[in-house]
Amino acid sequence: MTRIGIIGDQGAMGAALVQAIEADGHTLAGGIDKGGDVAKLADASDVLVDFSSPHGLEATLHAAIGAGVPIVVGTTGLAERHHDAIDAAARAVAVLQTGNTSLGVTLLAHLVREAASRLGPDWDVEIVEMHHRRKVDAPSGTALLLGEAAAAGRGITLGDHRESGRDGQTGARSEGAIGFAALRGGTVTGEHSVILAGEEERLTLSHSAENRSIFARGAVKAAQWLTGQPSGRYTMNDVLDL
Amino acid sequence: MTRIGIIGDQGAMGAALVQAIEADGHTLAGGIDKGGDVAKLADASDVLVDFSSPHGLEATLHAAIGAGVPIVVGTTGLAERHHDAIDAAARAVAVLQTGNTSLGVTLLAHLVREAASRLGPDWDVEIVEMHHRRKVDAPSGTALLLGEAAAAGRGITLGDHRESGRDGQTGARSEGAIGFAALRGGTVTGEHSVILAGEEERLTLSHSAENRSIFARGAVKAAQWLTGQPSGRYTMNDVLDL
Amino acid sequence: MTRIGIIGDQGAMGAALVQAIEADGHTLAGGIDKGGDVAKLADASDVLVDFSSPHGLEATLHAAIGAGVPIVVGTTGLAERHHDAIDAAARAVAVLQTGNTSLGVTLLAHLVREAASRLGPDWDVEIVEMHHRRKVDAPSGTALLLGEAAAAGRGITLGDHRESGRDGQTGARSEGAIGFAALRGGTVTGEHSVILAGEEERLTLSHSAENRSIFARGAVKAAQWLTGQPSGRYTMNDVLDL
Amino acid sequence: MTRIGIIGDQGAMGAALVQAIEADGHTLAGGIDKGGDVAKLADASDVLVDFSSPHGLEATLHAAIGAGVPIVVGTTGLAERHHDAIDAAARAVAVLQTGNTSLGVTLLAHLVREAASRLGPDWDVEIVEMHHRRKVDAPSGTALLLGEAAAAGRGITLGDHRESGRDGQTGARSEGAIGFAALRGGTVTGEHSVILAGEEERLTLSHSAENRSIFARGAVKAAQWLTGQPSGRYTMNDVLDL
Repeated sequence: MTRIGIIGDQGAMGAALVQAIEADGHTLAGGIDKGGDVAKLADASDVLVDFSSPHGLEATLHAAIGAGVPIVVGTTGLAERHHDAIDAAARAVAVLQTGNTSLGVTLLAHLVREAASRLGPDWDVEIVEMHHRRKVDAPSGTALLLGEAAAAGRGITLGDHRESGRDGQTGARSEGAIGFAALRGGTVTGEHSVILAGEEERLTLSHSAENRSIFARGAVKAAQWLTGQPSGRYTMNDVLDL
Repeated sequence: MTRIGIIGDQGAMGAALVQAIEADGHTLAGGIDKGGDVAKLADASDVLVDFSSPHGLEATLHAAIGAGVPIVVGTTGLAERHHDAIDAAARAVAVLQTGNTSLGVTLLAHLVREAASRLGPDWDVEIVEMHHRRKVDAPSGTALLLGEAAAAGRGITLGDHRESGRDGQTGARSEGAIGFAALRGGTVTGEHSVILAGEEERLTLSHSAENRSIFARGAVKAAQWLTGQPSGRYTMNDVLDL
Repeated sequence: MTRIGIIGDQGAMGAALVQAIEADGHTLAGGIDKGGDVAKLADASDVLVDFSSPHGLEATLHAAIGAGVPIVVGTTGLAERHHDAIDAAARAVAVLQTGNTSLGVTLLAHLVREAASRLGPDWDVEIVEMHHRRKVDAPSGTALLLGEAAAAGRGITLGDHRESGRDGQTGARSEGAIGFAALRGGTVTGEHSVILAGEEERLTLSHSAENRSIFARGAVKAAQWLTGQPSGRYTMNDVLDL
Repeated sequence: MTRIGIIGDQGAMGAALVQAIEADGHTLAGGIDKGGDVAKLADASDVLVDFSSPHGLEATLHAAIGAGVPIVVGTTGLAERHHDAIDAAARAVAVLQTGNTSLGVTLLAHLVREAASRLGPDWDVEIVEMHHRRKVDAPSGTALLLGEAAAAGRGITLGDHRESGRDGQTGARSEGAIGFAALRGGTVTGEHSVILAGEEERLTLSHSAENRSIFARGAVKAAQWLTGQPSGRYTMNDVLDL
């Protein structure tokens, strides 16, 4: 029974984390939001999970180091200096940082990398995602993560081969391009498909999230796994042993 | 057994038409390409099928009128004056003009119009299509045709509500928008999906073309149907009695 | 602001109905479950919604007649005598009975009927559904409802053309068959696809339910619509004006 | 420029092989069908490709050994003694035997094995395939091959966990089952999807064949690859280095 402390417990993700902790038979060590005492929380926890904002990340990492507890960082919008702070903390405790805690998406990225690597550049890669009508950016962060996986599989850089927002007289597809398309509508939680299109055959690798609880569940699984690890920086791939 | 004459018999579509005519048990009255004698062909035919270019359309229509035979016009890239010429010809003979002769796409457009009309603007409409890597424009003509059907169902104009090429900080989806996304890759003949996304439920209406022969088959079916019709201008909807 | 009374308010569907009533700006007139006073509830309501069991249906219909209020019957497992009781009640008040209150599924069935009718028996109809791992019967009631719609469109009887559970040496597909396949797994709320497969082209008409609230939402919409109707028996098609 | 000899050159697959050999810039060493001189063909070839029938397999393997040329065996319906003969031949020359020469399907099976292994038995595996209306057995051989891959990934035997042909009162899904569903209709060449359904998320891994030429193309690629290999028995996995 792992005691899990939540940083950022007031939002939708915080509530989902509390549910996931209980559903998995763990103990909620406590939760704080803006202005809470992170050092006290760290002392009462076996592991911390942070889904708040980059703003307080450095203080949180210090508290983790102080208490000697591992930490899952699911906060998005991290800058270079946040990554530096994570690297520094990882010398003292186990730190897992990720932009997507879903086990399914983590595995999908792994399969995409494998497929892109084996099939080579003759198979065109297209990534299409759908999210609810309120989403304000495109493509989704997860779509880009999948594009990075395809690029890594091919040994290229995504930035040099990204083709998104096709509209009008586009000309033929660029050789080696990785294409993106974004659909928006309704209340869709998140669907991603990576299509590898070759000569007269196609592979399609897809993930569908029914609701946001999967991210909380993945974070709790990652937290539990992290309690047994030595100091160092980890990703979701390590949790799935990929 | 209908005698069908082909204008534009040398290209890939011409070859597909010859096959479709034979497969359906009709007779190939003959075929011409650039510079052929269209009047002679018209005299030998019960119906003409034109998949050539707008260039010779007026001469072709005159030949149809002269011989008193109906004509299917599948030529794309028509300008205003071509449509005027078709209207004039339709006073003398039956003329069916269309940008897509597939029965499946014709029916899909009909269903999309019906669905958009019944569900109303609370259901977001997204249209996604995939074509081979050599296609040079986006969205496809068929995707736009489906978007027009959705707009007609809602009683709006597509031009005022089209949202295509999403990329970057797009902001939330515009109310009442009809979205388009284009995928390109491999050798895909043509796939179109119209998604109607409401509160926690979605309808998806899709068409998949295995190869280009369906356009020839639809044109032959249209030609046969047209032989029994009085003068006037028709569309594929009339063939399917939509 | 319509006052809606719920029969069967203690289960998951009852809770979803309460939420939907509030979300739509209506008033919950009250709710009863086994043993509650249905006559009193009917007197306090503008319309009743029954998602309980067939057991108490006759008493509920009497209460609706006594109070002169319309009623939506979403109860499943109805026998002949329940339908007779509904017909009798419909002479006095407006009664809407349906096996699926989702607007999307209702429209899908309408589109399937239309498509099957227009395309004719040369296009093979296949229906595939996926539900969570705990579902105990196959195909789903909604899949059968969609199969009935396809059969009606073709002017045939589903029972004579149903082909389900293909396994082993099946032989070629029977001419005119309507096929069913059932997938089970995970926590899927409900997905249905009707495939119409012709010569080298395919139409696929699909519905996806993100969660069960859509059935409550559709029931509330039906209840509101029903308050303005004369006595008679109605279906969800009437709500959508199909 | 590899000289490829075809055993079974008169059927549809033989014609596709001839096309694929030319398209890839190789040389057709010759082709035989029932009653042809296989020893002479082997002497004139750098590699043999056999898509005929199990009947002549032993003679063909002897010819390959005699000429010292490798051989791709794509023949289906092999019995135990055919496999013994292949094992024996593989001591003298390189022999690649497979039930599906498509690169995409080969890779898909590899990804399915990987996914099933990583996700474990909590994720339900369902396999759904669609083929043309003339197919006489279900599930398809390729669906079973994918099921074997999932079973191998989980460390179980497919035969003990196969659940196919669901129809009627099935009860809840068996724990650890691998489900199969077969759709039939139209002219579909072959589509396969493997769904891994977990708690509120799903992975779907799919392959779509536009036409049969992909099997010929994969066989030619395998033949070319095989010319550089030492004696031994190989599979398509070796060609893709999986």
